[in-house]
Amino acid sequence: MRSDLHVVVLAGGSGTRFWPASRRVRPKQLLALAPGSRSTLLAEAVRRVLTLCPAERVWIATGEHLVRATEEALPDIGRDTILGEPLGRNTAPSIGWVTDIIRERDPDALVAVLPSDPYVADEAGYRAALERAIDAAQGGTIVTIGIEPTHPETGFGYIALGDEVAPGVHDAQAFVEKPSRERAERFVAEGKHLWNAGMFFFRAATMQAAIARCLPELARGLERLAALRQKGGDTHSELTRIFSELPAVSIDHGVMEKTRPIHVVPARFGWSDLGSWQAAWELGEKDAAENVADGEVVLVDARRNLVKSQGGGGRVIALLGVEDLCVVDTPDALLVMPRERAQDVRAVVEALKNAGHDDKL
Amino acid sequence: MRSDLHVVVLAGGSGTRFWPASRRVRPKQLLALAPGSRSTLLAEAVRRVLTLCPAERVWIATGEHLVRATEEALPDIGRDTILGEPLGRNTAPSIGWVTDIIRERDPDALVAVLPSDPYVADEAGYRAALERAIDAAQGGTIVTIGIEPTHPETGFGYIALGDEVAPGVHDAQAFVEKPSRERAERFVAEGKHLWNAGMFFFRAATMQAAIARCLPELARGLERLAALRQKGGDTHSELTRIFSELPAVSIDHGVMEKTRPIHVVPARFGWSDLGSWQAAWELGEKDAAENVADGEVVLVDARRNLVKSQGGGGRVIALLGVEDLCVVDTPDALLVMPRERAQDVRAVVEALKNAGHDDKL
Repeated sequence: MRSDLHVVVLAGGSGTRFWPASRRVRPKQLLALAPGSRSTLLAEAVRRVLTLCPAERVWIATGEHLVRATEEALPDIGRDTILGEPLGRNTAPSIGWVTDIIRERDPDALVAVLPSDPYVADEAGYRAALERAIDAAQGGTIVTIGIEPTHPETGFGYIALGDEVAPGVHDAQAFVEKPSRERAERFVAEGKHLWNAGMFFFRAATMQAAIARCLPELARGLERLAALRQKGGDTHSELTRIFSELPAVSIDHGVMEKTRPIHVVPARFGWSDLGSWQAAWELGEKDAAENVADGEVVLVDARRNLVKSQGGGGRVIALLGVEDLCVVDTPDALLVMPRERAQDVRAVVEALKNAGHDDKL
Repeated sequence: MRSDLHVVVLAGGSGTRFWPASRRVRPKQLLALAPGSRSTLLAEAVRRVLTLCPAERVWIATGEHLVRATEEALPDIGRDTILGEPLGRNTAPSIGWVTDIIRERDPDALVAVLPSDPYVADEAGYRAALERAIDAAQGGTIVTIGIEPTHPETGFGYIALGDEVAPGVHDAQAFVEKPSRERAERFVAEGKHLWNAGMFFFRAATMQAAIARCLPELARGLERLAALRQKGGDTHSELTRIFSELPAVSIDHGVMEKTRPIHVVPARFGWSDLGSWQAAWELGEKDAAENVADGEVVLVDARRNLVKSQGGGGRVIALLGVEDLCVVDTPDALLVMPRERAQDVRAVVEALKNAGHDDKL
């Protein structure tokens, strides 16, 4: 274990794609969506890195309204490394803020930023890629991990793969925003692009310099936050005011697209972004009729369905003669849709909002 | 109102076709399935006849285990005219038993036997048909009402229409069991067959004689029940023993097919047997996308679905992008199926039984 390594797990989220299981106060990372696990995705994300970094150097950046649930999901993580943002301003402010706080404690810190909600099938492969990226970052370059694509996904950003600069480490030529279908197909065919999985490795000082150069307005806001901490007066209202003025920009768009060199470690370790109920079905353990079901479920002539039962209380769910559906049951809300519409759950959340069902969001 | 008229409403049932709303202890007639009504089908059936017959002469033949729920559904009907059978032995024993009890109170009784669970759209037409059938029965003939078919239904018995014997009253040439598709189509094309809707009108003495002639074994059992009543000793165990020995035969098969003449009043009054969730959708009030939904329901790109929400407690049901489904939600069980599979709900009930979910039946 490196003594200078700090891990930052980004754990915000709005909780719409996995409605009704996910809610504003219980977004995706607080759900047990990983196949074969009864832990939350967030707890899994933390568990995976604890062989690389002790718990006291694992930081969680989350929303203020999620701090309590995050603490409950992570009994091994101390309250002082769970940081609640008063309002979400995208990833660049999050990363800048946490990086500053880490560097105040450890001036030589090396930081690994990881998302809280993907699924990783090959954990040994995952840790090997992390170790390679961490090593590559210690000299002062920002490093990312790029996932070798398995299909022409249009929902992710891509990283253009450049020359190898060290064993297993390449130059990242460009960060590419979500491509068209045709472009994504070309990326996969050519084998020169990787999925951007939102994993970043850097010296704290390196990121501070990059933000100062690429996002000077953010840098000024972060300085105000630092001043607030130094005078010990980061009251909630002041914190909220400064946060509300930070530019809401992603680290990809704000820093990665504007910084060179960035290095990338190509990897494959059974990664999935678990982006929707469809992905939960794809990864889930299937019965003979390819249903993925948990809870008390009775299936008659039912094929290729996903049934998530969180109703509890001995509740039984029966499916008769249906195919390719998602049925997600919770104590106060039920969703029924074709699996192929899983990307559109947001439309239901919007409809609920318009119908005044704020208590279900 | 005729002073000799008694109405018998047959209200047994096993509660499978409308699972999970219906259960063993809450069969179909105890559900509010009629469009536009919040009353149970049974309460509706009783309400429809109260202009013809006072409540104290309305009899309910139900299962012993349903007596309490039946009382609750019918606050205007006295406990002494709700008769609970210790076990179900089909309609001939029910009708024979209740007819005997009625005749003990009223030797000249004229009896109308009605089912508890159909839907009637045209109540004035319904009452007119009942009045005609009651009048036709007073001379000592068994009379039935035959519904003019609207489609070649294979789930009903039919009545072959004979010559008119009085205005609006015909001879019933034959009672025909559920026909094949081809035969049902011929029936509808020829216009000489009516649906048997299980409605019978007779002098109590006429039915007693018919049972003695057609079903002597039943007649003997009914005599034993009468003897038990006379000695005031119809304890539960004796009643159960005698009932268990009654031949389990329908009135159609046991009496109607073997008795001549029987007269039939052809009628149409917007009758539906409400035989499945499919019928509930067909009759229900539809939104612009032909969904029939009650309760807190959010529909996005959802067409021609039936949503029955009995979950209560502010529970919301969301349907996204689905078509032609039935979604029936109750506090302890949920069913999702295509509407066209509504006839197969029994298979789910069987699967539940096999999976040990007896508490959900």
